[in-house]
Amino acid sequence: MTQHVFDEAIALTPIGDNQWAGQTHPAYANMVGPFGGVTTAQVVNAMMQHPQRLGDPIALTVNFCAAVADGAFTITAIPVRTNRSTQHWTLAMTQGDETVFTGTAVTAVRRDTWSLDEEPMPQCPPPAEVPVPDRVAPMEFVKRYEQRVIAGPLPQVWDGSGDSSLSRLWVRDKPPRPLDFVSLAAISDIFYPRVFVRRSTHVPAGTVTLTTYFHVNAAEIAQVGDDFLLGQARAQAFRNGFFDQTAQLWSPAGVMLVSTHQLVYYKQ
Amino acid sequence: MTQHVFDEAIALTPIGDNQWAGQTHPAYANMVGPFGGVTTAQVVNAMMQHPQRLGDPIALTVNFCAAVADGAFTITAIPVRTNRSTQHWTLAMTQGDETVFTGTAVTAVRRDTWSLDEEPMPQCPPPAEVPVPDRVAPMEFVKRYEQRVIAGPLPQVWDGSGDSSLSRLWVRDKPPRPLDFVSLAAISDIFYPRVFVRRSTHVPAGTVTLTTYFHVNAAEIAQVGDDFLLGQARAQAFRNGFFDQTAQLWSPAGVMLVSTHQLVYYKQ
Repeated sequence: MTQHVFDEAIALTPIGDNQWAGQTHPAYANMVGPFGGVTTAQVVNAMMQHPQRLGDPIALTVNFCAAVADGAFTITAIPVRTNRSTQHWTLAMTQGDETVFTGTAVTAVRRDTWSLDEEPMPQCPPPAEVPVPDRVAPMEFVKRYEQRVIAGPLPQVWDGSGDSSLSRLWVRDKPPRPLDFVSLAAISDIFYPRVFVRRSTHVPAGTVTLTTYFHVNAAEIAQVGDDFLLGQARAQAFRNGFFDQTAQLWSPAGVMLVSTHQLVYYKQ
Repeated sequence: MTQHVFDEAIALTPIGDNQWAGQTHPAYANMVGPFGGVTTAQVVNAMMQHPQRLGDPIALTVNFCAAVADGAFTITAIPVRTNRSTQHWTLAMTQGDETVFTGTAVTAVRRDTWSLDEEPMPQCPPPAEVPVPDRVAPMEFVKRYEQRVIAGPLPQVWDGSGDSSLSRLWVRDKPPRPLDFVSLAAISDIFYPRVFVRRSTHVPAGTVTLTTYFHVNAAEIAQVGDDFLLGQARAQAFRNGFFDQTAQLWSPAGVMLVSTHQLVYYKQ
């Protein structure tokens, strides 16, 4: 069986205690440097491979400090504090002497408790009934995701006509790949900058920091298989160069898989 | 003029490059250890005092790795990457050899751009028309905040009757203190665990990680003075030991000051 291109992209070589070597993959190129989601996935993959890892990821914050240059990088993933059922991590990616990415994560052993999704999955037509977009953004990584946009597409005309930043879409890896924590971390960064959708105006924009909370364990993620996820994203405040973006991803069965938040730089 | 008790609590002594010494303050004690908001404020205060700081905080993520013991602590705040207009920080608090707190932050020099609050401040009666709660939680830090709860109070009866996790409240330091980034970081952690509100059931709960996005600069914060802020918080998903909590704080004039998100541990 041929390896999925996502697995090629996240492949790492251990090079010492808490350290891995990897390299950017052309299939996930963004406008400048790689798609932030795949950079995040590479770092999460290091943590997942760590021999001392306790439990599954429950929280992840990553900071994009600088454009990642095409080529080799080093990842550091350190379990700085291990408790009985939770573990705290510091994460970094460097290229030469440059820190290009920092982060923290929490992993945990979950126990069955009272549970409830308070934010329901929005009612949407199934993926088969949503047309494939006529046009998508020209970046290479966009071709690695199958998207069916229900509301709030990437504007086709940049005419300043937007009035809401809300997007809803079905999304999965292309070709389909069974979902796991690493690919879910990548898909959590799939939403276009909300400033495009709200303003129908194209301005330079890029994620500064991304926080993802995982609401499922490995077995629950495996149940999703390679099916589509329903994503929803919107902004709360755009202010003097930065806006926030709050999003959720649900399984087709309506289980909230992640809630995620990011702060995005924009110009003008 | 007597120093405000919050300023006493956040006071730090520089002890070397990127390092400060401080200690917990009994006025901000929580059930076990200090109120997480004041621990966060102590660390933010170190960053604010750093001689190499560029611009104002725009994003902050903190992780509560272990209960902070009453007494002395050491804070490390390192500017790991400085760009032209943004700066990335790693943050930590230690007690002896133990890491009790980790974090990252981003500071930035903002430029005037097109701006918009997409999430409007909810219509609420002014603070003077909202009664002071009859009863509040017994922890010492609760006495350091003046709160007027409009919706979703701490349940008075633990009878399992809740049906929504939404709370809305006016809040400020008590006695009033002019707002700044440090106190705003503390107030961002003021919301009771949503599991109490949703279930009217008292279960052990505590914040694991907290992310705050600041939508204002220092001058805009200064305009708030010592007035009340309007806060709103709700949960999106409760699942097997952890739930998320998403919140906003507005100035009385309706400007969104912060949007904030946390993941909270709960038992049962």
